Amino acid sequence: MSPLAAVAPDPTPDAPPESPARRFRRVRAHSARLAAPLSAEDAMVQSMPDASPAKWHLAHTTWFFERFILAARPGYRPFDADWDYLFNSYYQSVGPMHARPRRGMLSRPTLAQVQDYRAEIEARLLQRLDAGDLDDEALQRLELGLNHEQQHQELLLTDIKHALWCNPLWPAYRADLATVKGAASSLRWLAREECIATVGVPAWPAASAFAYDNESPAHRALVPAHALASRPVSNAEFREFVDDGGYREPGPWLSDGWAQLQTGGWQRPLYWQEDLEHAFTLGGVRPLDPHAPVAHLSYYEADAYARWAGARLPTETEWELAAAPLPVAGHFADDGRFEPQSAADTGGGAPLQLFGDVWEWTSSAYTAYPGYRPWQGSLGEYNGKFMCSQWVLRGGSCATPRGHVRASYRNFFPPDARWQFAGLRLARDA
Amino acid sequence: MSPLAAVAPDPTPDAPPESPARRFRRVRAHSARLAAPLSAEDAMVQSMPDASPAKWHLAHTTWFFERFILAARPGYRPFDADWDYLFNSYYQSVGPMHARPRRGMLSRPTLAQVQDYRAEIEARLLQRLDAGDLDDEALQRLELGLNHEQQHQELLLTDIKHALWCNPLWPAYRADLATVKGAASSLRWLAREECIATVGVPAWPAASAFAYDNESPAHRALVPAHALASRPVSNAEFREFVDDGGYREPGPWLSDGWAQLQTGGWQRPLYWQEDLEHAFTLGGVRPLDPHAPVAHLSYYEADAYARWAGARLPTETEWELAAAPLPVAGHFADDGRFEPQSAADTGGGAPLQLFGDVWEWTSSAYTAYPGYRPWQGSLGEYNGKFMCSQWVLRGGSCATPRGHVRASYRNFFPPDARWQFAGLRLARDA
Amino acid sequence: MSPLAAVAPDPTPDAPPESPARRFRRVRAHSARLAAPLSAEDAMVQSMPDASPAKWHLAHTTWFFERFILAARPGYRPFDADWDYLFNSYYQSVGPMHARPRRGMLSRPTLAQVQDYRAEIEARLLQRLDAGDLDDEALQRLELGLNHEQQHQELLLTDIKHALWCNPLWPAYRADLATVKGAASSLRWLAREECIATVGVPAWPAASAFAYDNESPAHRALVPAHALASRPVSNAEFREFVDDGGYREPGPWLSDGWAQLQTGGWQRPLYWQEDLEHAFTLGGVRPLDPHAPVAHLSYYEADAYARWAGARLPTETEWELAAAPLPVAGHFADDGRFEPQSAADTGGGAPLQLFGDVWEWTSSAYTAYPGYRPWQGSLGEYNGKFMCSQWVLRGGSCATPRGHVRASYRNFFPPDARWQFAGLRLARDA
Amino acid sequence: MSPLAAVAPDPTPDAPPESPARRFRRVRAHSARLAAPLSAEDAMVQSMPDASPAKWHLAHTTWFFERFILAARPGYRPFDADWDYLFNSYYQSVGPMHARPRRGMLSRPTLAQVQDYRAEIEARLLQRLDAGDLDDEALQRLELGLNHEQQHQELLLTDIKHALWCNPLWPAYRADLATVKGAASSLRWLAREECIATVGVPAWPAASAFAYDNESPAHRALVPAHALASRPVSNAEFREFVDDGGYREPGPWLSDGWAQLQTGGWQRPLYWQEDLEHAFTLGGVRPLDPHAPVAHLSYYEADAYARWAGARLPTETEWELAAAPLPVAGHFADDGRFEPQSAADTGGGAPLQLFGDVWEWTSSAYTAYPGYRPWQGSLGEYNGKFMCSQWVLRGGSCATPRGHVRASYRNFFPPDARWQFAGLRLARDA
Repeated sequence: MSPLAAVAPDPTPDAPPESPARRFRRVRAHSARLAAPLSAEDAMVQSMPDASPAKWHLAHTTWFFERFILAARPGYRPFDADWDYLFNSYYQSVGPMHARPRRGMLSRPTLAQVQDYRAEIEARLLQRLDAGDLDDEALQRLELGLNHEQQHQELLLTDIKHALWCNPLWPAYRADLATVKGAASSLRWLAREECIATVGVPAWPAASAFAYDNESPAHRALVPAHALASRPVSNAEFREFVDDGGYREPGPWLSDGWAQLQTGGWQRPLYWQEDLEHAFTLGGVRPLDPHAPVAHLSYYEADAYARWAGARLPTETEWELAAAPLPVAGHFADDGRFEPQSAADTGGGAPLQLFGDVWEWTSSAYTAYPGYRPWQGSLGEYNGKFMCSQWVLRGGSCATPRGHVRASYRNFFPPDARWQFAGLRLARDA
Repeated sequence: MSPLAAVAPDPTPDAPPESPARRFRRVRAHSARLAAPLSAEDAMVQSMPDASPAKWHLAHTTWFFERFILAARPGYRPFDADWDYLFNSYYQSVGPMHARPRRGMLSRPTLAQVQDYRAEIEARLLQRLDAGDLDDEALQRLELGLNHEQQHQELLLTDIKHALWCNPLWPAYRADLATVKGAASSLRWLAREECIATVGVPAWPAASAFAYDNESPAHRALVPAHALASRPVSNAEFREFVDDGGYREPGPWLSDGWAQLQTGGWQRPLYWQEDLEHAFTLGGVRPLDPHAPVAHLSYYEADAYARWAGARLPTETEWELAAAPLPVAGHFADDGRFEPQSAADTGGGAPLQLFGDVWEWTSSAYTAYPGYRPWQGSLGEYNGKFMCSQWVLRGGSCATPRGHVRASYRNFFPPDARWQFAGLRLARDA
Repeated sequence: MSPLAAVAPDPTPDAPPESPARRFRRVRAHSARLAAPLSAEDAMVQSMPDASPAKWHLAHTTWFFERFILAARPGYRPFDADWDYLFNSYYQSVGPMHARPRRGMLSRPTLAQVQDYRAEIEARLLQRLDAGDLDDEALQRLELGLNHEQQHQELLLTDIKHALWCNPLWPAYRADLATVKGAASSLRWLAREECIATVGVPAWPAASAFAYDNESPAHRALVPAHALASRPVSNAEFREFVDDGGYREPGPWLSDGWAQLQTGGWQRPLYWQEDLEHAFTLGGVRPLDPHAPVAHLSYYEADAYARWAGARLPTETEWELAAAPLPVAGHFADDGRFEPQSAADTGGGAPLQLFGDVWEWTSSAYTAYPGYRPWQGSLGEYNGKFMCSQWVLRGGSCATPRGHVRASYRNFFPPDARWQFAGLRLARDA
Repeated sequence: MSPLAAVAPDPTPDAPPESPARRFRRVRAHSARLAAPLSAEDAMVQSMPDASPAKWHLAHTTWFFERFILAARPGYRPFDADWDYLFNSYYQSVGPMHARPRRGMLSRPTLAQVQDYRAEIEARLLQRLDAGDLDDEALQRLELGLNHEQQHQELLLTDIKHALWCNPLWPAYRADLATVKGAASSLRWLAREECIATVGVPAWPAASAFAYDNESPAHRALVPAHALASRPVSNAEFREFVDDGGYREPGPWLSDGWAQLQTGGWQRPLYWQEDLEHAFTLGGVRPLDPHAPVAHLSYYEADAYARWAGARLPTETEWELAAAPLPVAGHFADDGRFEPQSAADTGGGAPLQLFGDVWEWTSSAYTAYPGYRPWQGSLGEYNGKFMCSQWVLRGGSCATPRGHVRASYRNFFPPDARWQFAGLRLARDA
């Protein structure tokens, strides 16, 4: 039986900090829960080079713990030495790896073998933890490994959504998912004067709070006067853009975006049906909630919408400034809906839905903060080598595990990526 | 329980003709046996656009019976009306179909569902058979459907071989397959004077013996004087070509072949290991038997070898003339080895191994016989529309079900196809 | 001044054989005439990898004489040793070569330099001829070189036609080309009983009459009973196919052809305008003559038309049998129209327009005749290495130099090639 | 005769401002001078989709004046109405356009016709100028058109360099270009404390000094403490990176960069010969000057070098801060060398060679400045729609016309672009 069989409930906000072992069990169990509705065959589909099979996510996250914690001790006997090649994602300094677009070819190991692998590595790791046998560096890598696994939990959902959508039968991941109909909230503009702000956070692990290396160092930046919309753009608002010929006229589009629209035959957001009233979801085809935040936009679409609307995307600094004082509350994967939903305006002038529901494209290209230092060694490959041709998204989505994001969190994707739960919030110059 | 659970043994040559029901059960059971070693995940891999997942083969062959026999009766309720789209291979006149290169995306229906589909259609068909409810045309389509299924049985094996080879772990389809070490037989040349021969066979179903439409009509042809090698080219002989720089010098290659060699980085037959002494087989990596017929050649390689050897490939007419008087005996899939093997020379001057072991590339492009008429209706798409840019192969292989081939049988593949058990036999002008 | 400046008129049919020098001058002058309307820029366009710039044709044909005749003598000093690399087409045994799809990159040498090259090599060759300094082999290569140049003369025309059509301005090669309006001739079927025929011709240079190696040896073949149409299919007839949805229904198409139609967006023959009443010609956009033979068809289109018409393409043997007794008379490039034209029925039961106007696709794949031997040495690469995935065309076209073709002549192109003056003649089984 | 035949010399720095007519004549004459060494054929080569033929540059820059100034007056009769389609680059709001990768297909209009077009539009424009017939907006567009033409002058040089390099003969653009051997200057680090700086310039044409819209508005930015190298990285320094396995180890490379290196087979800077001691230049193959700034780097290579050297690229703000107080002096296209050259250290602590010689890649992605407004109308497509997946370069090069750049000038290219004269200057955190 898996050491995770008896799993603790999620901690409440006020709860004392979890022990590493308890946290390890909890995060790992979330992966198992997400994979539970999938057949061995579902778990093997790779619908495009950018996506990975669910089985691969389950194995790779496990390999990360084995490789970077367990195997760091001399004399360690790997579960299967050949698997380094299969489940190394992109760590060139660790060794060669299976070609990413061919991950869907791997019928062996089977899903059952991968589940055995998970159980065995969990047992080994928990035994080391119980024995007090992990030094500070190993404990830091454990923390990183858990954050890493949470990232793959979100990808597992977005990848399987794309995979099932590629099946002409449009099967559901879970047919029992609830459909919630929300209420509109009117859009307010939240103005801010020019200021000098501190953005980013001190570098972990020197600082105690975990953050990825790309969120550091904390640094001063000048933020011009601007206004930020109180909530994300809704499906109903985006539909106006579609109805107005948004996908037929090149006017508001970036040059690359217009070319991509033509190549890809884009006519509406990914997963929207032709009637513009239904969309494919993890629960199958469902009516679109007009008041919910629009999702599954590429950067190109988000940017074109903003121009069409006479506004612009916010910078990541503007976004972070608005988010920093707020609690990281919102609608996350743990709520089990896996679709963005609308939120009533709670009044009080605070921005809504900065966290959860949809990642928000910013107008900031993904580059290094001033003074940025990648982590040492192989883990330096984690973030830094991708700082090119990608854009920053902020805030997390309905597929992000609760507790994974924070105000300083920087997600990034290429401008043509549509399969994430990515939407937008408008901004404008003051 | 599947209606096939209790299966009769293969008929002996002298046995009286099988009943359609018994034959149906026997052929269908062979598919089930071939699929038995495969996990649900193995059965879903599609390693290249030319290949199909095993699950798809199992479903498509079943759909063929349902669509062309059961559904021909008015009022028939299909097992699942949506599956027409999934399991139609290329019958444009039946309706649109799922894109061939995307067959590996289909995690649903699952293998278990496909097996249920097989059982249900088998039950329906056997019930119709038992009730004496199939007219002549339906019985003919049953015969065609069985031959069709046998073709896919061979493809299931060659496709899964390719799929497993694409896995960096090189797993075996069945690790328990025997390795047989054969003996050399010296090569003799069998000469024939110019003659006028009848090739091809009368068109079925007007004629009682089953044959594909592309084997008809029987027609007269003038065959020039020539000599045919007594056996296929062996691994040892082909290795001389490799050792002599066969893959490094353009001299004997067709222009397209040399271009393909460079694009594909070809340095030896597909599945041969770099040491030229081992090869990937359905039993995993095994030593190459030097005396066994060389296999997994493209037309380009077979043709280049023949030129290098100062000979040529035989025409399909030359081949058929040699094969017509012989019994269809040899080493087939039913022997359960799934690798070509050598054969001792039995003396008496007859050519050896024309049937079984390896398909033999001929120098004949796949075109229509004089007077060729495709079958009527949708089934006219079975063969005729592929008469372009392919070459004829003859004789069957170690993956062909016994009883499926005959002297007039015309297999065909594009010149760059290497994943079939395809080798060659030399010929020369008199 | 070029040694060709004063050029003799074409010989009349009854004239005594030309001297090699006179013939050399005459053939070379035809190339110069064809190139005369082209600017240096026109002469450099390469509109697709299959086509070559006119400048390249002019240089390559000259290189052929230099390399295979002049350079065969020890101590020869090449015009420019670097040009071997530029103007070698595909002779692997001669050495490496510039990539075919990059021929349009060669701004240097300039057209003027290439014309100097032509003049210089002509002078050197004529000087050797005058001096009686060419042995039999050299004289044979001269004959081959002249036939080779004639082939490139036709390609120069079809390539420049494609190049100018790719220019959105649709400029004319020569705006002064005449438009001729022809008369219809009704279609007759010419029947023939089964027979044994001799096809092909004795191998040159052992035989005195020039022929390519692929036309030999003369050999016996059994030709089934069949009927051949008296003339090629006309534009009006082909338009019926278009109007009947010929490009919208997959029924009569080869599988590869239908795929190509979709990929290429084919809706009508190449160069036809959308109104189906005009076409781009070397004289610019002109009205289509409904009675003229349809041209610029791929094999796929020719074959689909024939099936739609309830007929088939003739085999190359059937075609050769009909053509062998006839004089090689027709409408060729020397007539200076460069478009197919209709021909009145002259009565008497003979087939019309077998020679000239349009190449006729046959149902014969381009393969070796029984007993085929490529020429020795590098020239063995001339024809033999292309015997794969191509189809035979017969009879020459309105772009072929008069005197270049004969009844045994085998042209060949891949099935998707549309930029040649290629049409079809129907045949049917008896 | 062209109205430009008698051309004034370049103005000296202290000269009074040129009249628009004089400036127009001078800038246009520079294009003519640059094109003079090119044959009609040279002027037609397009060696890759990113590059354009010289003829196209000559025509497009002329079309810009015609379309945006002359044709703005009602009733204007265009030189050739069809040419809008040919010479519109990317202005979707003007109308459809010829596909960029097919510009090399345009043998018509000929170079001579394009030169006539230039002369005619120049005459028309000068006549309007002389007549005092251009309003303020037209005069602004004239200024823009001249800057636009200067950009294309640089591209003409970099595009023809690439085109000639693609010719296996490696011909020179001008064989008479001088080779200058420079002297080394040691590298100093110029430190700067954190500050708030104003970057960018007021928006033209509201402001009187010309600048592109992407350089505006002037805005405040916080610049962290840092140090900037006193001069660009030299060939000798970059060669150390190559010798140290820089192109063999993935360590310092961006993930996309390493993939591109493998796809493109990169082993050294573009144009460097295998011996690492010579390079292809516009004067043919020449010895590399070890002290000259390294050029023809992609962003990937510049970034990898900086990491290997333990430094980083400067941000565009850091660069602009250093450049703003300096005169725009340096080695530009007007010097007629068309290769970067070394510069002696003049002492005094100022940074060297910020202007001219090589564009310097910065670590700043090309995005909008806060408050950015594209120009109104079609000219809004000039810069803004390219703000995606590109990086900013600063300072101009040896192919930039003197007077074209300034401290605020933002050039931009995708990260894999190597054919510009692009190098780098190191920076580091304080």
